[in-house]
Amino acid sequence: MALTLDELAQLSGAELRGESSRLISRVATLDEAGEGAISFLANRRYKSQLKSTDASAVILAEEDAADCPVDCLVSDNPYLAHARVMSVLYPEPVGSVGIHASAVVEPSAQIDGSASIGANCYIGPGVIVEADVVIGPGCVVLDNAFIGEGSRLVASVTLCTDTRLGRRCLIHPGAVIGGDGFGLANEEGAWVKVPQIGRAILGDDVEIGSCSSIDRGAIGDTRLADGVKIDSQVHVAHNVQIGEHTALAGCSAIAGSSKVGAYCTIAGGAGITGHVELADHVHVSGVTSVTRSIGKPGLYTGTVPAMEHAVWLKNFARLRHLDDMVRRVKQLERELAALKDGSGGEA
Amino acid sequence: MALTLDELAQLSGAELRGESSRLISRVATLDEAGEGAISFLANRRYKSQLKSTDASAVILAEEDAADCPVDCLVSDNPYLAHARVMSVLYPEPVGSVGIHASAVVEPSAQIDGSASIGANCYIGPGVIVEADVVIGPGCVVLDNAFIGEGSRLVASVTLCTDTRLGRRCLIHPGAVIGGDGFGLANEEGAWVKVPQIGRAILGDDVEIGSCSSIDRGAIGDTRLADGVKIDSQVHVAHNVQIGEHTALAGCSAIAGSSKVGAYCTIAGGAGITGHVELADHVHVSGVTSVTRSIGKPGLYTGTVPAMEHAVWLKNFARLRHLDDMVRRVKQLERELAALKDGSGGEA
Amino acid sequence: MALTLDELAQLSGAELRGESSRLISRVATLDEAGEGAISFLANRRYKSQLKSTDASAVILAEEDAADCPVDCLVSDNPYLAHARVMSVLYPEPVGSVGIHASAVVEPSAQIDGSASIGANCYIGPGVIVEADVVIGPGCVVLDNAFIGEGSRLVASVTLCTDTRLGRRCLIHPGAVIGGDGFGLANEEGAWVKVPQIGRAILGDDVEIGSCSSIDRGAIGDTRLADGVKIDSQVHVAHNVQIGEHTALAGCSAIAGSSKVGAYCTIAGGAGITGHVELADHVHVSGVTSVTRSIGKPGLYTGTVPAMEHAVWLKNFARLRHLDDMVRRVKQLERELAALKDGSGGEA
Repeated sequence: MALTLDELAQLSGAELRGESSRLISRVATLDEAGEGAISFLANRRYKSQLKSTDASAVILAEEDAADCPVDCLVSDNPYLAHARVMSVLYPEPVGSVGIHASAVVEPSAQIDGSASIGANCYIGPGVIVEADVVIGPGCVVLDNAFIGEGSRLVASVTLCTDTRLGRRCLIHPGAVIGGDGFGLANEEGAWVKVPQIGRAILGDDVEIGSCSSIDRGAIGDTRLADGVKIDSQVHVAHNVQIGEHTALAGCSAIAGSSKVGAYCTIAGGAGITGHVELADHVHVSGVTSVTRSIGKPGLYTGTVPAMEHAVWLKNFARLRHLDDMVRRVKQLERELAALKDGSGGEA
Repeated sequence: MALTLDELAQLSGAELRGESSRLISRVATLDEAGEGAISFLANRRYKSQLKSTDASAVILAEEDAADCPVDCLVSDNPYLAHARVMSVLYPEPVGSVGIHASAVVEPSAQIDGSASIGANCYIGPGVIVEADVVIGPGCVVLDNAFIGEGSRLVASVTLCTDTRLGRRCLIHPGAVIGGDGFGLANEEGAWVKVPQIGRAILGDDVEIGSCSSIDRGAIGDTRLADGVKIDSQVHVAHNVQIGEHTALAGCSAIAGSSKVGAYCTIAGGAGITGHVELADHVHVSGVTSVTRSIGKPGLYTGTVPAMEHAVWLKNFARLRHLDDMVRRVKQLERELAALKDGSGGEA
Repeated sequence: MALTLDELAQLSGAELRGESSRLISRVATLDEAGEGAISFLANRRYKSQLKSTDASAVILAEEDAADCPVDCLVSDNPYLAHARVMSVLYPEPVGSVGIHASAVVEPSAQIDGSASIGANCYIGPGVIVEADVVIGPGCVVLDNAFIGEGSRLVASVTLCTDTRLGRRCLIHPGAVIGGDGFGLANEEGAWVKVPQIGRAILGDDVEIGSCSSIDRGAIGDTRLADGVKIDSQVHVAHNVQIGEHTALAGCSAIAGSSKVGAYCTIAGGAGITGHVELADHVHVSGVTSVTRSIGKPGLYTGTVPAMEHAVWLKNFARLRHLDDMVRRVKQLERELAALKDGSGGEA
């Protein structure tokens, strides 16, 4: 597929500066782009690559336009314009409609005629698959799950019983949605399982990355609101509630029964403890542990940055004596004040 | 299914206060329960919901009984009583006995007649599947694995060669048991794989959460004792030994050859380094790194709590100068002491 | 299979001290070895087990030879010699050549006649499978993926579209290679997906552990060079570049677009932030967060070691006041200096 710069400008809401009929057939990075490719500049780190790019055009912000040696599409949000150009030049492949001969579909499942069920899938009893759903090869969808219109399970996805996906959800391989949460009662030291009867309910336009676990609720439901985006290797525990358009990056985790507001971002490796509540617009830095509720929007951090091992070695043993040091500083302050008072420094 | 409060009291070992013939058919949370539902109060955070509950009955502790507006089951351990009520009202679904037509079972595998093998499963040569085992759709069980009586692989589970599960184990989707550990020798910079020939051996009543990895031993075996409970997204490395009734919460990890005692709890995101030993009854807080052996029962913590980013920014750069600060405080103490001695503050 | 000590010495490049014709049929740990078994000593922690071992022979370093009660193979690198002995005594099982009747292979896929495709696999259109490749049961290989000569997918592996594996790669169950990276543009709060069109490209001799995610590139490719070794539960995000013979231990993660050099080691649970660069021969300690580029080889650490909870409790609240404490110490120093100057301590 090839489109003109003018068409791409209109589709992406950007302003064209250059030859409107120039044909663009692909997207590439600034340093790898060539004839027929459009590139983008959205991260200052890559500004130095702009001047020498061989791209046919570049999507960028007004402030960078003067430095662009080729045609450009100017946008207030170059990364968003880039996303739209990508969507047009690289549409999702259309699966072949119908049920693959090797798939096992229980008789009571309801599969829309426009849906695609891939090779070696299993679709359990009572499952409902709406229009235009694409289920790639090797997926398992257990009893009474519901998959909303236009959703896609790429491959090797498992949806457990009663799981509900909204419309246009995108679930990547290895993800497990609706697995049991970690509910255990203790009887004189031994654990007794608490059956997990809640569901995992995903809104519209939710994306779940590869090998992520979204556990079902214990009694009530685990709920991911519309537009929630979850990266690979993430754990969302039972009864968690996540608000609209909140994004969780790779290896992050939310423990049981916590509520994360809307428009939050949880960076990679961050963790939210159980039974807490985060307001809307809370942003958690990478590898940060949230150990209590956060009622105020803003950025929160607890990352310990790596340092040369020798520096770490001599400093970190001190952490367990911080309190003692504070006390000693206070004592010094008292003594010094007393000295200055002429009392001889006894405190 | 519906049971009377009296029946539930007896099954759960709780004391009934209320109408013994009241019928209960389901469990719900305090704020969502209605007619015919039983609820429970086991976490102080939810006490405020007790007074306004519409549940037909509530399981709770003696101290909360006076505040309960409806019938109640009084227990020393309300959460345990709740677990038992759940088990009765929500029994595990019984799979259809037999081998699904789409499953591939190698001729030398021995499948008990009461077992259930789901759609699209693969059961390798020499595998033994005992009575009442349920293997859900899409599971792969490799050569010579052993699955003890009454165990259940929910779906999409992989058991590698020689893996052994005890009785009544419960393995959730995406879990991989008995995959290779990370054994590498170094030859002038390049890595040479060390074949991993040990096994992963699970005792009775072990539960493994979704997408967790329990690696096989390098030479000896990785061993999880009876009653070990493991949440989603957990990594247990080669040759780890875990004692009875120890529980590992989501995203925790134990590195190679470490031994964790019995009745331990490892909270979410916590990590145990390799080649160390934890005594029985050791409890590790969330996101805490255990970097050496722990010989004494108790709670251990190393969590860095999140803070406002600006607060973090000005404080955490100081971490690499802690040692210097301690030295300066000591120097101040010496100088001050000398001053008070009248020596002029020289130390 | 049994070999003589002399044969093992030659195969492993070690020096034999003992009876050259002694037959060895297996490998065992020092404390579990018996007649016919060879053991090894490569970690000082296990030195105490040497004297009482019942092994027929032990692989060890010169410095330990005098303490060995049985025959030994002396090596400069006992663990490497052990790896070689293991490879000979425990060769990889040879899969049965050919395509299992239950596998689904698209007509346009090219499968070498010497390859093995296991039960319930799916091999998509345009896939190329080279000679001696073994694909275990339950794998899904999507469109146009390429699997180089002698590579092995153990079982339940998913390779997404366009993924390329070099020769002799080893991929463990549950791993997902080439899944979408986390590319999102923001439009007034809502996320807009950025199609991920790059590939995941693995060199020769790459190993990927169970349930790990290696995401495809956004536009350019994610690249793992020859000899990269990755443990279980690891996340490598889009566009990451990893140099030759670098190893990533369990639960580690590298965020998007970062470059890790050759001969690096990233220990368990460590994380590298996005868009940074690590030089060759950088070693990152367990559970350490690398938050900026590292240009110099060496060991880097940021681990907070666990401590008794009460010790933690009184010390860690101080972390958010470190900066204040440093200021107070400076003030004390100024005041004390002034006192000693006879100025009365006003600073």
